[in-house]
Amino acid sequence: MLNIEDILKAKERIAPYIYETPLIPLENLNELLACKVFIKPECMQKTNSFKIRGALNKMLSMDKEEVKRGVVAASSGNHGKGVAFAAKLLGVGATIVIPDSAPEVKVKGIENLGAKVVQCPLSERHKIANELSESKGYINIHPYDDYDIMAGQGTIGLEILEQFPDVDTVVVPIGGGGLIGGISTAVKSQNPKVKIVGAEPYKLRRYGESVKAGKRVKLEEQKLEADALLTQIPGEKNYPIVTSLVSEFVGVKDEFLLKAMKLLLMEGKILAEPSSCIGIGAILQGELKVDKDEKVCFVVSGGNTSLEKIGELEEII
Amino acid sequence: MLNIEDILKAKERIAPYIYETPLIPLENLNELLACKVFIKPECMQKTNSFKIRGALNKMLSMDKEEVKRGVVAASSGNHGKGVAFAAKLLGVGATIVIPDSAPEVKVKGIENLGAKVVQCPLSERHKIANELSESKGYINIHPYDDYDIMAGQGTIGLEILEQFPDVDTVVVPIGGGGLIGGISTAVKSQNPKVKIVGAEPYKLRRYGESVKAGKRVKLEEQKLEADALLTQIPGEKNYPIVTSLVSEFVGVKDEFLLKAMKLLLMEGKILAEPSSCIGIGAILQGELKVDKDEKVCFVVSGGNTSLEKIGELEEII
Repeated sequence: MLNIEDILKAKERIAPYIYETPLIPLENLNELLACKVFIKPECMQKTNSFKIRGALNKMLSMDKEEVKRGVVAASSGNHGKGVAFAAKLLGVGATIVIPDSAPEVKVKGIENLGAKVVQCPLSERHKIANELSESKGYINIHPYDDYDIMAGQGTIGLEILEQFPDVDTVVVPIGGGGLIGGISTAVKSQNPKVKIVGAEPYKLRRYGESVKAGKRVKLEEQKLEADALLTQIPGEKNYPIVTSLVSEFVGVKDEFLLKAMKLLLMEGKILAEPSSCIGIGAILQGELKVDKDEKVCFVVSGGNTSLEKIGELEEII
Repeated sequence: MLNIEDILKAKERIAPYIYETPLIPLENLNELLACKVFIKPECMQKTNSFKIRGALNKMLSMDKEEVKRGVVAASSGNHGKGVAFAAKLLGVGATIVIPDSAPEVKVKGIENLGAKVVQCPLSERHKIANELSESKGYINIHPYDDYDIMAGQGTIGLEILEQFPDVDTVVVPIGGGGLIGGISTAVKSQNPKVKIVGAEPYKLRRYGESVKAGKRVKLEEQKLEADALLTQIPGEKNYPIVTSLVSEFVGVKDEFLLKAMKLLLMEGKILAEPSSCIGIGAILQGELKVDKDEKVCFVVSGGNTSLEKIGELEEII
């Protein structure tokens, strides 16, 4: 299980190695998004994504002798960069299994941290990571289906409440449920009145559909702009936590992800990767209803993107 | 003259209409800039630049009957946008005289606020504004050579000290001296130990050269990436204030302005216009020496730029 004590311990464990990202009021967006806009910019985090928090908490919690065997991780990119960072810190080898379709900037970011990259078709990444774990003895660091990972990501929730106790709503991107599982546990156990919203790609509403079906549903593989949110099924450990604490799941189309990225960049002056703009996209799409006085904190989960991708925003109206 | 009381009054006067921009620690840049990096992001200000502060303070201080005659302002763009905003707020007409070379995004921003735009060759902007003031009876709102304008811009200095009392150094872009005149007065009168650095374009070191000559020197007109910093001579009212309070002037080449813009965007995840990145450029150029423990606040003065300009950063290494 996961509780607030785990997250408080995670905070202590990882604090020396990460940044406490600021909580930025982005008043220029208030009118455009029809609420009071606040950003938790994990795009400004070390490795440019929140994933370093979970990876560090996991690997710093492990037995030192055990971790020396080296680690392997399946990742769409950001978790891999977090694991690569943690492995470098601990002086152990890391192999990251990443889809062929991952943005170049993520592959390079991992390689620059000294980890080995294995590319494969999207749907095979977990299978290959498991095989490498078995054949080479590497420890498999799962991107979300793990209590220590969730506890690490949950430190963002602690920071949000410390930095901005008045927050009404926290909007969090969902893939497997690691980030939102941690944040919702941290936030709800300290202030149950805060509403947590999960934003997932419209074509991969694995949480929305699972809740409807009353059990974890596996959806078909998709190619999307939301390259960090391609998980097909909610994590086993994440699912009960997330469904009990999250008030609402919204499905956001790629088109609105890119509109949101453009808005955040050109009006808000913050650069995030497409997946991380999904919460803002939910409002632009009319999928998430907010009140004009509602103080909404958008967790902008990562910023690993390229000038090339920014260039594509020219076409977006 | 300008003193801290004027700036405190300006703060009271303009506070209902502007944003208090945050003070952002940008730890991802600490190693790259070899100091502790903090950003005061006026790119996130209403109208996307600090200029609204001075324009509002000036126009809210004026006699209400007088201001009804309408206003005119010579501007490279951002001051014009500030004046246009203030004119709209007060319900009076505004004409902005802006160089032919100004970025399209600035011209459109002014027009969108309902002001009339007159374009002309760069060096004629002040002359034409004066003529319009005389022929039409408009009140000329000078972009920097004015105590009320400086007092408005100085409110940034108050905020920096409130938000971050431990700051060691504040680095400010210089054109005519309105921004740095206000900030240095606010900061130095509250904490004389804080060092103020002025960053100006290398080919337009009107402050550096004037200090050397012992009097205000007018330099030749230049076409530069630093489109907001093309003033050829220090302002008459600004010069004595600025030279008595600023510790150091540094001249930054266009090349380093764009490198700084790219660094701030891709590593720092903040979008600013080229002129506003000049302080960071000063460090990259090796022109400004800082200590690794020095807490340096860069005033990022504006963010009126375009996807097209961002695209040009592909070429910058």
